[in-house]
Amino acid sequence: MGILVHLPSFMAGPITAALREAAPDIPVWNGRENAPAHEVEAIMAWGLKPGVLPAFPNLRLVCAAAAGVDKLLAAPDLPAGMPVTRVVDPGQQTGIAHYVLAMALRHARRLGSYAEQQRRGEWKRHPAPDLSCCRVGVLGMGEIGSAVARTFAAIGFPVAGWSRSGKGIPGVTDYTGDAGLSAMLARTDILVCTLPLTPQTQGLLNRQTLSQLPAGAFFINVGRGEHLVEPDLVALIDEGHLAGAALDVFAKEPPEPGDPVWNHPRIEATPHIACDPSYELVARQCVENVRRMRDGRELMNLVDRAAGY
Amino acid sequence: MGILVHLPSFMAGPITAALREAAPDIPVWNGRENAPAHEVEAIMAWGLKPGVLPAFPNLRLVCAAAAGVDKLLAAPDLPAGMPVTRVVDPGQQTGIAHYVLAMALRHARRLGSYAEQQRRGEWKRHPAPDLSCCRVGVLGMGEIGSAVARTFAAIGFPVAGWSRSGKGIPGVTDYTGDAGLSAMLARTDILVCTLPLTPQTQGLLNRQTLSQLPAGAFFINVGRGEHLVEPDLVALIDEGHLAGAALDVFAKEPPEPGDPVWNHPRIEATPHIACDPSYELVARQCVENVRRMRDGRELMNLVDRAAGY
Repeated sequence: MGILVHLPSFMAGPITAALREAAPDIPVWNGRENAPAHEVEAIMAWGLKPGVLPAFPNLRLVCAAAAGVDKLLAAPDLPAGMPVTRVVDPGQQTGIAHYVLAMALRHARRLGSYAEQQRRGEWKRHPAPDLSCCRVGVLGMGEIGSAVARTFAAIGFPVAGWSRSGKGIPGVTDYTGDAGLSAMLARTDILVCTLPLTPQTQGLLNRQTLSQLPAGAFFINVGRGEHLVEPDLVALIDEGHLAGAALDVFAKEPPEPGDPVWNHPRIEATPHIACDPSYELVARQCVENVRRMRDGRELMNLVDRAAGY
Repeated sequence: MGILVHLPSFMAGPITAALREAAPDIPVWNGRENAPAHEVEAIMAWGLKPGVLPAFPNLRLVCAAAAGVDKLLAAPDLPAGMPVTRVVDPGQQTGIAHYVLAMALRHARRLGSYAEQQRRGEWKRHPAPDLSCCRVGVLGMGEIGSAVARTFAAIGFPVAGWSRSGKGIPGVTDYTGDAGLSAMLARTDILVCTLPLTPQTQGLLNRQTLSQLPAGAFFINVGRGEHLVEPDLVALIDEGHLAGAALDVFAKEPPEPGDPVWNHPRIEATPHIACDPSYELVARQCVENVRRMRDGRELMNLVDRAAGY
């Protein structure tokens, strides 16, 4: 019995190699056509098209190759009791926090505007903002959101986080529930989305919510493209209510050639690079869970399928 | 007796107002033509051209309006025993640290390259660097350099600092002396200059020193333009040894229209905005020192004129 790697080619090669390195005793097959169907006990995947899962009658575990499992949980033929695990990688959390920090500081310190001045040959100084004007609000306080919040708090920013139940992180004000969302938006100058994608969070960032941010606010998306109603964001920027946005995730990746994110002067768009998990860690966590499953022990980083993360 | 504000006009107005607010009992004159020469006991200044100081026979204190005092100490007619004070502003230290962090993260996470990709409509992912490839080295570990070093250390970067005597900051490796400079340069991927400008540090960053950085290193200058031999930096970037630079200070500000910093694709140039001190704090520290001088008490933030900072 062994592990099937069912991933886009740019991830499949390195993760297959890392799995073989992590567990020389467990067979690892790269691609479903190479795997003996009855011997697949675990699948490492990012998304699962209909028809993939039923081909493996002895499958007992689905391991996501990422922190977000929305694409996996959307598989229509995922059996009801099938355990799904996700990746929890402190290095990825740090990397995403640094990406968010880079984008937030560039906005707060007007460095994009200064770059435009430089291109025009213009020397003009603007006062640096007081940190009280750079209130950060983090949507979703899982491992990644908590790392983002802690990073901003560590360097002196006022930080709040919105979650189901509050996290009690020192220096981070908790907001919860629908009322908490409105209250947090009203005090947030830099909004960061690190939510998991679920039916409850899909489309959460729309005209109704984004317009509750103070004038001049900035939005950073490192969650999923589907959290955002992109035309609403673009309109609020064009109307002057929002200062701009940094987007690392998109409902369609890459965005279509005509998508306004490609050349909007106030939107910085990056190709889903805020931070990948380490392939070695993805492999080690998968192998550990395969061994735990074989031994009947509790799995690591098990997804609450009802909650969606 | 009172205080003469002798500053460029953009600073003179707000600092005069802040001084009057901080000390309603002390006369404050904005501009030498408005001041009764015999009543000037203190001058608030940034630079002092020859001839200014001798006009005030009862002058007992020169207060810099900035953290760096190189322009003041260069005044040829500054009397030998005249006390000079400088500004120490934690808010400015934080602001400069955030500027440096913004530029360092943008370099480390290739966000400038991604912005170029965006303009070309290109979706191409590059692996995020491991933090072990982002070793920060800070030249000058005064209040500002220490704040920069602490900020990077707080969010997980490997950090070293070069100073005369070592600082012992947790998480920051100390380097001292000439040998220490070479050793620090050899292990530094992101070099930050926060030195005071003195005869010893002028021109310190030249081909000989900058070429000791590893290939692909990045340079950030928030010290003074005169620390850098700019043509050497430009040549090392053009030769491919250095990845680029962020410069906030220049030997001549603004740089001449033909200066390559204006349109070099690998140099981000900003108009000396990393962070000004708060005018209110500049005024309060000046007033406090005038009162201390009158009472014969020890001055705050007194400059060591021999050391130059």
